[in-house]
Amino acid sequence: MSGDTNFYNGCETVKEFKVIERFFTQRGQARRDVELNIGDDCALVNPAINKSIAISCDTLVENVHFFADMPAKALGYKSLAVNLSDLAAMGAEPAWMTLAITLPEIDEDWLADFSDGLSEAAQYYGVALVGGDTTRGPKSITITINGQVPTGKALTRGGAKNGDWIYVTGTLGDSALGLDILRGKQNIEGEYGEYFIQRHYYPTPRVLAGQALRSLASSAIDLSDGFVSDIGHILKQSGVGAIVDVAQLPLSVAMQASVGSEQALGYALTGGEDYELLFTVPESQRGALETALAHSGVSFKQVGQVSTGDKLRLLQDGEPFSPQNYGFEHF
Amino acid sequence: MSGDTNFYNGCETVKEFKVIERFFTQRGQARRDVELNIGDDCALVNPAINKSIAISCDTLVENVHFFADMPAKALGYKSLAVNLSDLAAMGAEPAWMTLAITLPEIDEDWLADFSDGLSEAAQYYGVALVGGDTTRGPKSITITINGQVPTGKALTRGGAKNGDWIYVTGTLGDSALGLDILRGKQNIEGEYGEYFIQRHYYPTPRVLAGQALRSLASSAIDLSDGFVSDIGHILKQSGVGAIVDVAQLPLSVAMQASVGSEQALGYALTGGEDYELLFTVPESQRGALETALAHSGVSFKQVGQVSTGDKLRLLQDGEPFSPQNYGFEHF
Repeated sequence: MSGDTNFYNGCETVKEFKVIERFFTQRGQARRDVELNIGDDCALVNPAINKSIAISCDTLVENVHFFADMPAKALGYKSLAVNLSDLAAMGAEPAWMTLAITLPEIDEDWLADFSDGLSEAAQYYGVALVGGDTTRGPKSITITINGQVPTGKALTRGGAKNGDWIYVTGTLGDSALGLDILRGKQNIEGEYGEYFIQRHYYPTPRVLAGQALRSLASSAIDLSDGFVSDIGHILKQSGVGAIVDVAQLPLSVAMQASVGSEQALGYALTGGEDYELLFTVPESQRGALETALAHSGVSFKQVGQVSTGDKLRLLQDGEPFSPQNYGFEHF
Repeated sequence: MSGDTNFYNGCETVKEFKVIERFFTQRGQARRDVELNIGDDCALVNPAINKSIAISCDTLVENVHFFADMPAKALGYKSLAVNLSDLAAMGAEPAWMTLAITLPEIDEDWLADFSDGLSEAAQYYGVALVGGDTTRGPKSITITINGQVPTGKALTRGGAKNGDWIYVTGTLGDSALGLDILRGKQNIEGEYGEYFIQRHYYPTPRVLAGQALRSLASSAIDLSDGFVSDIGHILKQSGVGAIVDVAQLPLSVAMQASVGSEQALGYALTGGEDYELLFTVPESQRGALETALAHSGVSFKQVGQVSTGDKLRLLQDGEPFSPQNYGFEHF
């Protein structure tokens, strides 16, 4: 800009523009389908032919979704990971994202760490950062993610049918236990304690597993609110019921070693933020499942079966399971 | 959900989900290219063949970008309008959006008004609301917008060439004067006062004009930060300079009647939030401009010419114009 207009360079807008330019430009994965990157009024991307675009957005607000002392790198990573988990649940391949970040002040060390975490996830999962807005205000992060999925092949919450088998990936409840450690409600030292905190800070979105399930699963959802709440969305959208054997819910070795079985079950059923996939598979596709998921490197476990009606029935050792009787603090 | 799980219905997540479902689902324009709407892990949209997708996001934070007493309907409208203005500057047709809204509490009257304003703009400009996240926290709104533009035909900031003519749409400075009235820095009563406030609350994104300019303009940007700041982006990205005659900047009748000419010029040059288009047109296309913009119903005015170098030279009556000497409060 000209000397005549240098007097604008001190204004907030320019400073904030430089911040996002410095910390975020080209920190995602470079993609050939990005025709124009950050720096114009819009980015331009060229979608693949015969693919639908999957779109989702999530906001994380300080002191609501994360503590003020959450490491910036973990926050950067997790902000993207939770959005990638939504793509995984649709069977979509990650593609492009926008980042809206609101900060009370420009803390360069914090921003560098946040950007490192974000870009680690973006590069690993092949996401280009194509747009952003940095604003001043109470700390929050909103990411809108775009993925691509062959048209007509996306997994939804609405396709579960009576008789389909219900599966979950990974292990459940670890993240919620990690949160309770951070809150001071649990005191678990050493390697296991660290494991739970890492599971809370660095959830693994099941992106490859979701894609592998496209031709097999009748419905899918990611476990963000907790198993009982999230399976409810499948049942409602599909117009079905389900029977789940709580003894089959996959628990980590660390979980089994660290808390009693009732408490473990409480975390697994209602803890939330697992970012594992819950999906249903028709009997005819059960045989193909093992092969399909082998390449995604994630364990999976059958935990129940879709039924008629609209109710979720929890069983334990063949008997009705009544969580109210257990007084779980998470219920 | 089953009776067993009713005890979850009191939780925040469910309540907030219902809020966004109630106030925002299907409040945008219905579009045939939306295969799956809000209510699953992602929305699914089917982009047109041979079109690029233009993506932009903007955040508005209370007490930073808008006052706490801004009418909710205006805020809903403007949150989308500022994003549509970015699409206009690329020559893109609006298509889909996500809305992330953070609120300190659920005020149903406020939400209904906000949703009315948002949906008015969404329906007028043909935008489908395909995703959202409602969170609790200090009030802010982030919209990520997607538009479509024939591949290779988008307007950018980078194409201005020496000799191209510089134009702006509409009139400049009205919004900034409206803001000063709201701030109590100006006291303008009656019809004109109301006009300035309306221009601040309800900017008109120049969506049709942007599309009409696709085959004519060599570069374009929307005027969000103010004329001097925004033309600087064109000059920087295009690697050119410019000469602008400040006497040619289009001022509304209301502006000319309400403040002195120096103050009017200050608002026009640096006020910001006009959401008009600034664009450059090669000599060879000047004749076609009138016809092309006639259908968009927006006035436009030539204000200068692209030059070599990298400086913005402001002239007034052929003499160098030095804004510093005028003591504009906006400088």
